[in-house]
Amino acid sequence: MSVDTPLTLALPKGRLEEQVREHFAKAGIEYHFEKRKLVARDKDKRLEIFLVKNADLPTYVHHGIAGLGVCGEDVLYEAGVPLHRLKELPFGSTRMCLAGPKGASIDVSEQGLKVATKFTRFTRDYFHNQNIPVEMVKLNGSVELAPVLGLTPYIVDLVETGGTLKANNLEVLQELSSIRVHLVANPAYYKYHYREIEHFLEILEAAGDE
Amino acid sequence: MSVDTPLTLALPKGRLEEQVREHFAKAGIEYHFEKRKLVARDKDKRLEIFLVKNADLPTYVHHGIAGLGVCGEDVLYEAGVPLHRLKELPFGSTRMCLAGPKGASIDVSEQGLKVATKFTRFTRDYFHNQNIPVEMVKLNGSVELAPVLGLTPYIVDLVETGGTLKANNLEVLQELSSIRVHLVANPAYYKYHYREIEHFLEILEAAGDE
Repeated sequence: MSVDTPLTLALPKGRLEEQVREHFAKAGIEYHFEKRKLVARDKDKRLEIFLVKNADLPTYVHHGIAGLGVCGEDVLYEAGVPLHRLKELPFGSTRMCLAGPKGASIDVSEQGLKVATKFTRFTRDYFHNQNIPVEMVKLNGSVELAPVLGLTPYIVDLVETGGTLKANNLEVLQELSSIRVHLVANPAYYKYHYREIEHFLEILEAAGDE
Repeated sequence: MSVDTPLTLALPKGRLEEQVREHFAKAGIEYHFEKRKLVARDKDKRLEIFLVKNADLPTYVHHGIAGLGVCGEDVLYEAGVPLHRLKELPFGSTRMCLAGPKGASIDVSEQGLKVATKFTRFTRDYFHNQNIPVEMVKLNGSVELAPVLGLTPYIVDLVETGGTLKANNLEVLQELSSIRVHLVANPAYYKYHYREIEHFLEILEAAGDE
C-alpha cells in the first residue's frame, strides 16, 4: 500500500465507529479525529477516513467519495446501491426482529401484518417472499412507540439487548434475520485499487478475527 | 373543553418542544413528562401529549393517534399528508436555503443544479417550478459535508445562525423559503372536536402571540 495514495474509507459516526477503532488498533492501524473534524488520516497515512452518518454511508461510497466503507447489512439493504462486500467484520452483529405486545400471538389475518418500521425495504421484501401481505408505516425513530400509542400492533426493528422492548411491554415475536457488519467497496474503486485493498485486508486479517 | 375528553397533541422531541412548553406556559397550560415517559397530561387535564420524533409527527397525526400536532413547514412538506393548518405559532421560524462554497456563483448549467439535501420533496418542487433541472443526492444528516467532501457542489438545508455553514467554509447563496411552525390537525379529528379545538385556540391566543 503506497504511502502517497491513501485508501479512502467512510466510517459511521457512533458506537460502530468505536468498535472499528478498537478492531483496527489490534491490526496496528490507529487514527484520531481532531475536535470538530470529520476527516482524518491514520498514523501510517495508509487511510484517509471520513466520518459520516450511518444511513448516508452507502451514498458516499456509491458516489466514490470514499472508496471503502464499514456498514451494517440493515443500512446496506435499505440503501439498495451496488457495493462489493469485501469482508464480514467480527463485531457489531445484531438481529432484525418482528416484535409486538408481550404474549401476543402473530395475527396474520387476511389483511396481513401491520407493522411500523424504519426498514421498509427489508420488511416489504421479507414478508412478500413469504407471501404474507404487509402494511407498513414508515417511522424515523422511536419505533417501539407505535404499538404503545396504537399506530400499529407490530414493529420490525433491530434488537440487541431487548431492553427498549421490555421498557415498552414489548417482546420479540420472531427473529427475521441476523445483521452483520461488512467492509464494503465501490466496485470501480475496488477494480482500480485492487492491490492496495487486498494488502489492507491482509493487515486486518492479522488482527485475528474472533 | 371537557375535562374527561382531553385533546390529543403530538409534540416533536427537542428544541421545538421546549419552545412549545414556554409558549403554552404563557397561556397557563403546563405539562411535565416523567422520566423516560413519552406521554403526559397537562395539569388541567385538557391535553394528552405525546413526544415523538420530529419527522414522524405528521405520520402520527395523519393516522389519528394524535389529533393535533406542532410541526415545522419543512417536515409537513416532506411528509406530504393532508393536515389542517390551524394556526401559525410565534416561534421556531427558520429559512430553507441554497448554500455552497463561499464566493461561489450559482452555476445553473445545462445539466442544472446538483444538490445534497434532506428535503428532496421541497427541493424538487422548488427548482422544477422555476424550470431549473435539479439532480439530488438524498442525505439523512450532516448535509454540509457534501460540498466539503465533493459529493455535490451545493446543498439545500435549513439555516438558522449560519454557524455550521461558516465552520465548513460555506455560505447562503439564496434563501428559498421561510419555514414557520404550525399547529396542525387531523382533518377528521378537527371535524369531530371542532368546539374543543376552537376553545383551545382561544386559550392560546390569550398567550399574546408576539
